[in-house]
Amino acid sequence: MEITVSRQAQFNAAHRLHNPDWSEEKNRDVFGKCNNPSYHGHNYKLIVSVTGMIDPETGYVIDMKILKQLIKEHVEDKFDHRNLNLDTAEFANLNPTAENIAVVIWKALRRHIDSALHLKITLYETERNFVEYAGK
Amino acid sequence: MEITVSRQAQFNAAHRLHNPDWSEEKNRDVFGKCNNPSYHGHNYKLIVSVTGMIDPETGYVIDMKILKQLIKEHVEDKFDHRNLNLDTAEFANLNPTAENIAVVIWKALRRHIDSALHLKITLYETERNFVEYAGK
Amino acid sequence: MEITVSRQAQFNAAHRLHNPDWSEEKNRDVFGKCNNPSYHGHNYKLIVSVTGMIDPETGYVIDMKILKQLIKEHVEDKFDHRNLNLDTAEFANLNPTAENIAVVIWKALRRHIDSALHLKITLYETERNFVEYAGK
Amino acid sequence: MEITVSRQAQFNAAHRLHNPDWSEEKNRDVFGKCNNPSYHGHNYKLIVSVTGMIDPETGYVIDMKILKQLIKEHVEDKFDHRNLNLDTAEFANLNPTAENIAVVIWKALRRHIDSALHLKITLYETERNFVEYAGK
Amino acid sequence: MEITVSRQAQFNAAHRLHNPDWSEEKNRDVFGKCNNPSYHGHNYKLIVSVTGMIDPETGYVIDMKILKQLIKEHVEDKFDHRNLNLDTAEFANLNPTAENIAVVIWKALRRHIDSALHLKITLYETERNFVEYAGK
Amino acid sequence: MEITVSRQAQFNAAHRLHNPDWSEEKNRDVFGKCNNPSYHGHNYKLIVSVTGMIDPETGYVIDMKILKQLIKEHVEDKFDHRNLNLDTAEFANLNPTAENIAVVIWKALRRHIDSALHLKITLYETERNFVEYAGK
Repeated sequence: MEITVSRQAQFNAAHRLHNPDWSEEKNRDVFGKCNNPSYHGHNYKLIVSVTGMIDPETGYVIDMKILKQLIKEHVEDKFDHRNLNLDTAEFANLNPTAENIAVVIWKALRRHIDSALHLKITLYETERNFVEYAGK
Repeated sequence: MEITVSRQAQFNAAHRLHNPDWSEEKNRDVFGKCNNPSYHGHNYKLIVSVTGMIDPETGYVIDMKILKQLIKEHVEDKFDHRNLNLDTAEFANLNPTAENIAVVIWKALRRHIDSALHLKITLYETERNFVEYAGK
Repeated sequence: MEITVSRQAQFNAAHRLHNPDWSEEKNRDVFGKCNNPSYHGHNYKLIVSVTGMIDPETGYVIDMKILKQLIKEHVEDKFDHRNLNLDTAEFANLNPTAENIAVVIWKALRRHIDSALHLKITLYETERNFVEYAGK
Repeated sequence: MEITVSRQAQFNAAHRLHNPDWSEEKNRDVFGKCNNPSYHGHNYKLIVSVTGMIDPETGYVIDMKILKQLIKEHVEDKFDHRNLNLDTAEFANLNPTAENIAVVIWKALRRHIDSALHLKITLYETERNFVEYAGK
Repeated sequence: MEITVSRQAQFNAAHRLHNPDWSEEKNRDVFGKCNNPSYHGHNYKLIVSVTGMIDPETGYVIDMKILKQLIKEHVEDKFDHRNLNLDTAEFANLNPTAENIAVVIWKALRRHIDSALHLKITLYETERNFVEYAGK
Repeated sequence: MEITVSRQAQFNAAHRLHNPDWSEEKNRDVFGKCNNPSYHGHNYKLIVSVTGMIDPETGYVIDMKILKQLIKEHVEDKFDHRNLNLDTAEFANLNPTAENIAVVIWKALRRHIDSALHLKITLYETERNFVEYAGK
């Protein structure tokens, strides 16, 4: 029996959308107020979803305590209360859009989760904007 | 890398469920209090989800400002603070169930979104009742 | 020991804001799209709050089952799936703004709740607009 | 046109995670504070999702009133205000993890829903932990 | 300048409403399904609100990290994943209604918070039922 | 009849907690990760509450369209997608704690709202941390 289990977390970060290959004018045109050079920020809400078979001994797909710890180590400790552009290696050369942040988180968690399990990331930048990535 | 981006919006409308081919009695039996001839209403919460490849130049699947504007023009401006049965061409001859409203919104947005992108509509009629339509 | 207990409920209704003493033009100017003659609607979220002493025998201020039943009888059965302007005596001659609906609900419940208890109504017209009335 | 309709419900229950084939020590190691012999509890939030064609006569996939009644009979009346381990036949010999509860609810509803319709269960144990099961 | 700061937390517990001075029959009549002898449970959502002057050096009324730690020590560590009736001294002889739990939490925190600061507790037993206590 | 009407809004900003009169070490000790020199950020949720008499002609305390516009001009246009420390005059010499932001917003709105009306600000820094200020 295949089932999906999900764990929600949160981190608060500053960022700025910017493409260094473009002129300042084009950056402002495309990214609007998200291009503010002094940065702005968000409470990012993260949902990590893992799909696999239920272990008949535990009744678990994956122990939520382990999943919570993986999210803490590989997402919260890296990104919470950070400036994504300035403080992280991941976004030194990658535009920190919600799409790219979701892909970075997926890759960071993928290597620590049993390859028999499917992994999906949902990331809310605001209550009204969110993205989903499942590694395809 | 295929990713889904979603934008949430809201509109407040009156409606009545009714099948003109049925007797008043059958309408009351099937639709219950939703058949009230004087109408009732809802705060419809809408989530528009678009799936596609991330553009490496912008880091976007679709610019959320553009998606927000499409929702405003083709959904909110048409349906917000309207009586769906009386004030709209779409539901003059179509029963405005949550299912049918979702299909109508999907069709209205589909023609304005790049055909390479997949489109899905989620519509909450109340916090406890919602529907999803992806054009299949 | 004085404590406040609250119960949440919901009803879905149609309404129109309109002052019959004004011209159509002034009504449109003041009430905007809320003046639509065909009505629009909302999911009204209601919170009923009762303040008083804890009964040492039950540990209750008021039995929530009784409060739930009072809300059902005097609010939901009257207003749910109704057109407030057309279907209710309360708003036949009273503009159904959130403010006036809260006052009407407060008066309807006040007579059924022990006068030693304080009563307050919170009414959400949308997630972003709400009012509070405590009988002062 | 294939569409998914969902209905949300809730039930409040006590439970304890425990594997009778293991030592007390191993149970504490694996299940941590969820193994407390005196039980703890949750407000379980349930979303039942049904996928199928829209009936052109009603505009419904399934009448929400019927779905609501099925959830009441086969989930709420059985599990609400119960101790899952002590008071239910379903979990007398099955560990009541969120995963197993979702599978049990899926099976309980599956036999009462037209086999042409697809069924999926989403179960929130807390705001931050939830599972999804679709019968695969 | 007087301001109120609030911190939200959560704990999951089992409980049973019961008055040992009453017959089993009266207990069932008054407390209904909340009287189930095998217990049921809830995700209790707690909001702790502290009112006082802003410290001009820090810009804080109270350091949220300290408030978070006080809630952990005096509420979560005591009540989370516990059976309130069986596992806690506080409710060995006190009926664990939401009202009484709020008063117990208020008293537990009051002695650890500067007496110049006002303290208020809000406790949600479910999304639809909640209580507030401010020590009066 | 005195009633309170509230309007919710949101803005996304970067900030850093820092007291320039203190050493770097003391700043890190007191403000922890909120002192990060590269800034972090939040989705601030704002509720503006206005209390007064219902105007019998409109049924309004204050026209929500006007309140929404005041919030846009005096809060959102100033703070949304800004770095509070770097981009705003208000926080050039004031530590942007949630407490201080609430007071600044209260003062900004107070001068544009009829002095017969009472004004209160609620500001959520995260879902779990929020403050309230009413000008006392």
